[in-house]
Amino acid sequence: MELIYVLDILGTFAFAISGALVASDKKFDLFGVIIIAFVTAVGGGMLRDVLIDAHPINWIGDLNYLWTILTAVVLTFLFKSKIAFLSKTLFLFDTIGLSVFTLLGLQKGLNYELHPIIAIIMGMISAVFGGVLRDVLTNKVPLIFEKEIYASACLVGGVSYLCLSYFGISEDIVFIISASIIVIIRLIAVKFHLELPKIKDDLFSKS
Amino acid sequence: MELIYVLDILGTFAFAISGALVASDKKFDLFGVIIIAFVTAVGGGMLRDVLIDAHPINWIGDLNYLWTILTAVVLTFLFKSKIAFLSKTLFLFDTIGLSVFTLLGLQKGLNYELHPIIAIIMGMISAVFGGVLRDVLTNKVPLIFEKEIYASACLVGGVSYLCLSYFGISEDIVFIISASIIVIIRLIAVKFHLELPKIKDDLFSKS
Amino acid sequence: MELIYVLDILGTFAFAISGALVASDKKFDLFGVIIIAFVTAVGGGMLRDVLIDAHPINWIGDLNYLWTILTAVVLTFLFKSKIAFLSKTLFLFDTIGLSVFTLLGLQKGLNYELHPIIAIIMGMISAVFGGVLRDVLTNKVPLIFEKEIYASACLVGGVSYLCLSYFGISEDIVFIISASIIVIIRLIAVKFHLELPKIKDDLFSKS
Repeated sequence: MELIYVLDILGTFAFAISGALVASDKKFDLFGVIIIAFVTAVGGGMLRDVLIDAHPINWIGDLNYLWTILTAVVLTFLFKSKIAFLSKTLFLFDTIGLSVFTLLGLQKGLNYELHPIIAIIMGMISAVFGGVLRDVLTNKVPLIFEKEIYASACLVGGVSYLCLSYFGISEDIVFIISASIIVIIRLIAVKFHLELPKIKDDLFSKS
Repeated sequence: MELIYVLDILGTFAFAISGALVASDKKFDLFGVIIIAFVTAVGGGMLRDVLIDAHPINWIGDLNYLWTILTAVVLTFLFKSKIAFLSKTLFLFDTIGLSVFTLLGLQKGLNYELHPIIAIIMGMISAVFGGVLRDVLTNKVPLIFEKEIYASACLVGGVSYLCLSYFGISEDIVFIISASIIVIIRLIAVKFHLELPKIKDDLFSKS
Repeated sequence: MELIYVLDILGTFAFAISGALVASDKKFDLFGVIIIAFVTAVGGGMLRDVLIDAHPINWIGDLNYLWTILTAVVLTFLFKSKIAFLSKTLFLFDTIGLSVFTLLGLQKGLNYELHPIIAIIMGMISAVFGGVLRDVLTNKVPLIFEKEIYASACLVGGVSYLCLSYFGISEDIVFIISASIIVIIRLIAVKFHLELPKIKDDLFSKS
């Protein structure tokens, strides 16, 4: 579907800007910024493709990812002080990217005839590991492990994709519904500061 | 051999608990804990399989790894304060996992017709890199580089496996002897606080 | 070309020593030092080969890398206090390694019929990612993102390789000219403390 490709590129763009901003805060030079933007944007899909042996991997097989990322870095470089004003737009793109990456990763996993559970994991890896690699390369504890309900939204979206597909609904409609579910969960989670539980105390410990 | 598969699963279980404990100390949320447990348990074998192009890689080809890891995380979540009492049992499982992972990795390397030296390295990667990835993702200097005699035990076990195989001894017996060697070296090393030398001063420096 | 293989080994040797020195400063034990030296020396080529599905990957297909690295570690272990006196020689080897790794990576990419831009990126990954992995494993922010004009030299060398090849000049001569360009850029950059610009302020911000 044409629309999905456009959303994929928009998501790539948003992920690249988020990477470029983190890298520039760390005072990386231009090359460092490009690498971090690159890894943030395509790192998840790259890891997925390496794990399932899908060659050529994402950015090797389609140069549009590279051009999108370089455009994002140039814009960040030129307009960094203005980008703060666009934070809501970027957050929206980022959330769209999250949902599209999840579902495209899941579809790719199914196309490679993986077990549905593994395919869902591939969707989550696609969506989430770009950010993990960004944080590892900038020497931070990956954000996703601590605060965001990110990965859970992807999980719910992936499961709903599989369930809806099971009922024979058209693929495009299933895609749009599941993507919307991911977007909505994330927006609600951010709005109401929802968090997953942590292992601090357990059932038997006294407070 | 059935027994080896059981030991492999026990080792996976122990590695997953060790990952879950580290992640929960870092106050990761449930998802972060699952990812760290996962990476600790199957990360070494995953890296090995990617490097030698063995697809489907370990956890993609056998869902039992996933169930084992999820069980370990749930148990850690429920009984964290009690797990300390089990530390000796867990240490035993962990050591068994170390030895089984080493030898299974070595065997896989030989099955892929790698040079025996490369096969030994594959065994060590299988055993050791799960912990390395765990430490990288939790932003720590990998423990193994500093303190444990871990990797050396795997090396000795791997070499003894190759040597014993050379004399035509039955594969199962070779496996058990070599695994025992790894377990014993590790137990002795921990008991007597043995460490490998470090590069501080060299032959020519004055103290 | 025989000469290029010798330069490749010399570069591997220099990269391994740089890794061993970093690891020994971190007080890693012997095994940790070997792993860091190994990753520094062959990590870039390993990542390239995994990404383009070139199996067997570099150090699995040619044991000479392993022997070179172990030799480098032993020499570092024995003569650490003396190695400082060799720093200029090592810097030269390291720079040669950088240029040779870039161009060999590029050639490999072209042999795998990748788009020339992707092939250049593969050259840069080969040259640069060993150091990145070294820094990630020793829990530092990768040096290359902050200070060195490293990657840019590789980029210019790679582009010149492609351009010169386009005019039908003999491959060996193109290799030597492009390698020299990389070496010269790096020497000039180090001599005059050249740096790439950073994203701090932008066109519109006031100072």
